[in-house]
Formats: sequence, structure tokens, C-alpha cells
Amino acid sequence: MVSDTTLDDLPLRDDLRGHAPYGAPQLEVSVRLNTNENSHDVPPEVVEAVVAAIAEQVPHLNRYPDREADALRDALAAFLRAQPASHGVPLTRGNVWAANGSNEVLQQLLQAFGGPGRTAVGFTPSYSMHPIITQTSGTAWVDGKRGDGFSLDPFAVAEQVRAAGGGTGADVVFLTSPNNPTGTALPLDVVEAAYEATRGIVIVDEAYAEFARPLGAGGTPSAITLLPGRPRLVVTRTMSKAFAFAGTRVGYLAADPAVVDALRLVRLPYHLSSLTQAAATAALAHADALLATVEDTKAQRDRLVAAMPTLGLFALPSDANFVLVGGFDDAPAAWKALLAHGVLVRDVGIPGHLRITAGTAAETDAVLAALAEVVVEEERAAHPEDTDDDEEQA
Amino acid sequence: MVSDTTLDDLPLRDDLRGHAPYGAPQLEVSVRLNTNENSHDVPPEVVEAVVAAIAEQVPHLNRYPDREADALRDALAAFLRAQPASHGVPLTRGNVWAANGSNEVLQQLLQAFGGPGRTAVGFTPSYSMHPIITQTSGTAWVDGKRGDGFSLDPFAVAEQVRAAGGGTGADVVFLTSPNNPTGTALPLDVVEAAYEATRGIVIVDEAYAEFARPLGAGGTPSAITLLPGRPRLVVTRTMSKAFAFAGTRVGYLAADPAVVDALRLVRLPYHLSSLTQAAATAALAHADALLATVEDTKAQRDRLVAAMPTLGLFALPSDANFVLVGGFDDAPAAWKALLAHGVLVRDVGIPGHLRITAGTAAETDAVLAALAEVVVEEERAAHPEDTDDDEEQA
Repeated sequence: MVSDTTLDDLPLRDDLRGHAPYGAPQLEVSVRLNTNENSHDVPPEVVEAVVAAIAEQVPHLNRYPDREADALRDALAAFLRAQPASHGVPLTRGNVWAANGSNEVLQQLLQAFGGPGRTAVGFTPSYSMHPIITQTSGTAWVDGKRGDGFSLDPFAVAEQVRAAGGGTGADVVFLTSPNNPTGTALPLDVVEAAYEATRGIVIVDEAYAEFARPLGAGGTPSAITLLPGRPRLVVTRTMSKAFAFAGTRVGYLAADPAVVDALRLVRLPYHLSSLTQAAATAALAHADALLATVEDTKAQRDRLVAAMPTLGLFALPSDANFVLVGGFDDAPAAWKALLAHGVLVRDVGIPGHLRITAGTAAETDAVLAALAEVVVEEERAAHPEDTDDDEEQA
Repeated sequence: MVSDTTLDDLPLRDDLRGHAPYGAPQLEVSVRLNTNENSHDVPPEVVEAVVAAIAEQVPHLNRYPDREADALRDALAAFLRAQPASHGVPLTRGNVWAANGSNEVLQQLLQAFGGPGRTAVGFTPSYSMHPIITQTSGTAWVDGKRGDGFSLDPFAVAEQVRAAGGGTGADVVFLTSPNNPTGTALPLDVVEAAYEATRGIVIVDEAYAEFARPLGAGGTPSAITLLPGRPRLVVTRTMSKAFAFAGTRVGYLAADPAVVDALRLVRLPYHLSSLTQAAATAALAHADALLATVEDTKAQRDRLVAAMPTLGLFALPSDANFVLVGGFDDAPAAWKALLAHGVLVRDVGIPGHLRITAGTAAETDAVLAALAEVVVEEERAAHPEDTDDDEEQA
């Protein structure tokens, strides 16, 4: 059914007019390093377990799923308890909530604790969905400022949290650790300072936590260690990155049980399908196998960071599965040139920078080779007198 | 991690204070006729196709799903085009949008077209999630009035749509056909009248459309037939009921492509998992097998309707897979008494009424037998002098 109607003809909410949909291009190229996916396929033993768990559910899909996702929340709590970076905080099902990706977890948090007349603050550059989800919920967004090298310190954060909302203070604070797109982990004293500075909810988005350096080697503990005694603190996680499970869409949080109670008031009933619950619960029983690729990915990340100076570029230290690379004369042009070489990375809108996901060794080879050519092309374009015209025309 | 914190200690949105989570009890009883699920398991041939389609996806779950769900939307459009009640309206992928249950479709519609300062009107009693989703999105809700026997007529509906929002008119109108919990289909002239009375969006929730009586036998055409030339009209559907696919969580809509464009501004990226997309697309290739149970269900529904007068109860005519039964002295007490007999039905809060899902023939036998006993018990409780005390004590 075709139609001449456009968005402008519809009674769209005023604050959405002129917006464009969020989303990285989904292009068919050989090397996709633009959405921080895990480049490793799901291992065969996990595939087998997941398919078996799903096959058990399919005959009974006529029934609604468990609205509380109890088995999955048990498995997620057990996984978090076992992580060294959690320092043994005794999380159980009541501390955990899951939804279709951490995006939906964040949306539910904004629906419960944000809304018209309330203000959220986040510190740009960070995950670009934070302001979008905030605004869709009718919450005002304040773009907080970072220091040099995209750093955050406790005093500056506390000050901005208190100043938000015209001085009434932020109702919701977004912190991201490791931060996307910079890759840097956040010291826990920044989280503590933000928490003390507000009577609102403090969300620490730890989507990439599993890629952090070990505690003994410069790594930062998870904000989960701060949960006891802080009922307004929420730590969000995802199975999309380290778990290589992006297609399943499972995000989750750890928090005080009262926060979970609040989300029950706004969650859509039966929001998490029986397939999702079964697949994720089965995968968590094989967490070690799924997370085995994390060490490979960290090695490729460190290789990317180390290689940049040899290309005349620079990279921030990263605790995530991606690297923010600076030093491009024209980042959008370099993005396009890399795509022409079959490599898709992410232009996150920071002048001179591109974000590159750490994938397999072969993908690192490919992106480094492509970068070398693109840097030379950039150099030639900037200094055309240096090019060997005779050879070009020969 | 235990805690003494309660919801009241958290900075919850003011308008959520004192609310209780939505949700019918998920109880383990032998006869579950409370959530209008399809009582028939997914047929073996469909199970096989769905598991095969999912097994193909699982190794690649490390990648995000198709954000546009193109294959699924193609299949949904083809299904709608083939329905006699659609009268051949040439719907294609661009007219269709899918999400995790029709609840998420409705939430996205409210996020795009409702919000603070806007008003939605619906006609009580109807699907109880309509006001909840409306209010979560910050939209004001107006509880429209129905006529005798829960009827709606074009003039009364148009008047209430125009009067909403303090006279500025409703921004969003909810109509439900067949209506839940009454089971009655809505004449198309009511939809046309609502559309003419507003410059807002008119949503016709057709979650139970596949159970409607045939067009030649008292049935009503789908509101899909009204879509051409009406870009503000939206028809929502679900795979949870007739398709016996509630556990998969797939709701969808048919509308002008501009409406789909609007939802792209508010949908969470990658909202529909690869598993959901694969399962639903495979199931739609076997729509005939899945819908084969619909005729059985309709026969059980008609059996329930016909039996009620013999029990001293009455039922409204139903175009859905459930029946609203009236004539109870005390509906909550009758609900409890049925549960004691192992039969779970729904107390939708209408005095003297209970809603009963039409399931298998055995389930109809069970609920009719339980109802017969409960009616006798009610009768005895109301008129204790009529009971045969001698026999009881013998």
C-alpha cells in the first residue's frame, strides 16, 4: 500500500520532529568492526546446549513466558557472584533484572525514575543511546563535561550532578565504565562522589566490564562492589559483548531489590520471550566457554593500541573491546576510505577520531593494513606536491 | 544481597507511587483459562521448522539482529494480504512493523504520538494495558464511556474523542475489536467516526481478529480495509493468540509507511532478537497449520456461550477466543471457588462477571463442570435455608 504521506504530515511529538533514527549502518562488508560485537561465532558446545534448551520450549510457545524470568535471573546472579571484580557481593535473583538488551533495562529505569519534570545527566562522549532513551521518556538531558583526555574526576562530576535541573540536582546520573567510545574505565571514587551528590538514581553502565584489565594489573573493580548500602545505585550489564550473544538481546542489572520492584511497575508484562530466557540461561551454564574469546579479544585490542603510533595515529588505553583512535586529519573521509578497503569502523562524531572494535587476529591484520594505506592516502591528499605524478601517469 | 529499602525509599516517579505491577497470577493449575492463550501446543511440523530456523541462527548470535526485521515484516505483510477479512489491501513490508508483543508496538506508538501534554482516550472495559502503557509514556488517559451491553456507537465515540484533552481532542484513540474482555467486534463505522473526529492517531487493537466469525456469517471486516487513504489509522495484531505463539512475543501493526518511519525514531535499536525473528518467520510459513486450531477454539467458545443459560448465567456473543460470563452474585468469590476446583479464569473487575478463555474440549468440560458446582455453592450460600441439612448431616 503506497502513500504520499510523510512524517511531517503525521501528529508526531514535537520534540521528535527533525530527528533521524539511531543506528550504525548495517552494511555487508568483509570486516565489520563498527558495533563492538564479538567477532567470534558462538562455540559449538554452546550452540548445542542453546538449541537443545530452545527445542524444549518450542512446543509450548502457545503459553506466555515466565513474567519474572526467575531461572535466568538466578543464572545471572550466580555469574556476577563468581566474578573476581564483584569482590564477593552476595547477589541473588532479587538483585537482578533482565530485559531485551541493556537498552530496554535503561528505558525501564528512565520510565520509573525519570519522566517529565526530571533531569538526567551524562558525560559526553559516552554511549549515544543514553540521551536518546532519556529524551524518549520525557526526561530532560544535561550534557556533562569531561576533562582533558575525556577524563572524569570526583569533584567535577559531583558539581555537575548538583547543578543539573536548574540547581535541584540530577534525578538520574549516567556513568559508563569502561566508557564507550573512549574505552577508559572509571575510578570508583567518581561513582561514590556522584552518589553522594544526588538523591536520585546513579546508573553505572558496565556493558564492557568483562574486557577490563585484571584487578592486579591496572584494572578497576566493578561498581557492583559499591552496591551494599547504596539502594539508589544500579549497575547495568549485557550479554551482547563478552558473551558473544548480541543477537539474543539480553541486558541486565544488579541493584537493591527495591529497584527491581520499581521496574515491575513499568515493564511490559511478559517482556522477555521464552526463547530468550531459555537461550540465555543455557548459555550462562557455559559462561567459561563463551568468555574464552575475551582473552583473544583483549590481545587484539592491545595489538591495535600498540600499532597506532607506527601509523602516525594514537589510541587511548582501553579496558573494553574497542579502541578510540585519534590523529586523523578528516575522520569522516578516513571512515569512507576504510570502507572502500572493505573495513567498517565507527565514526562517533569526535573530530579526528574513529572507534575500532577489536575482533579476530585476521581482522586486526586487515584493519591495520587498511589504515596504513588510508594514512598514506590522507598524507598525499594533504600534500599533493609530494606524490610521484610521473609514476601515477606511467 | 538483602536490604531494608522499600519502594517508598526510592525516588520513584510520583505518578507511579502506590501502583501495583500489572499481571494475572501465573499459578500452576490443571486448567488455565485466564490469559486467552491458545491451549493447543505448537503442532509438530511447525516445531520442526521453528527449531531448524533457530538452529541456523544460534552460531551467529555474536552478531546483532537485523534492526529492520525485513524478512519477518515481509512474511507478516504476506499473511495479512492473504486474509479474506483484509479485502485485498495490498500491504507490503513498508506497511508493517513488529516488536516484542503488541504491548511494545503500543508503547512505541505512544512514545511517538503521545507524551506529556497529550491525551489518549479508550473505552472501558477494554484491554487493561492500554491505560497503563499510556500513563507510563506520560500521556494523559481519558476513560471513555460505553453504552448498554458495553456497546459503542459512532456518535458517542466521536463526541468523546472531540471532548478529550479539555476540548482540544484526543491525540491517540484506542479501539479494540474484538473487544477484550467483552469479546464483541466493533462495527467499522465507529472506527471511521473516531478517525474523522480527531487529527490524532487512531489505533484499532485487533489482537483477536482471527477468531472473528466469517464475513458471511455476522463477522466484521478488519479495520485493515480502512487503511487506504487514512495515514493516521493503525491496526495492531499479535501472534500470541490464534498463532499459539505467546511465548515468542511477536506483535505487529499495519499502517501507512510514514507511521513506521515515526516508530523508527523511538524504537530501541535491535529491539527484536534474531531468535524471535527466525522463529516467527518460520512459523508464518506454516500459518495454515498454526491457525488450524482456531476453528476448534471457536467451537469451544460457542459451546461455552450456549451452555451459560443452562447454568443460570449469561454470556455476550463473542468474536474472540474468550467469553465474558455474567450473572455471578459475587465474581471474586466465584473466581476463588473455580480455582479451588482447579480452574483458573480471569476476574477483570466487572461486578458479576468473569472472563473465560476458550481452550480444548476437555478444558470446556472441566470449566463447565466446575461452574455447575460453583453456581450450586453460590446458590446455597445465598439461600442457606434451601440446603438439605438433614442429608448433609446424615
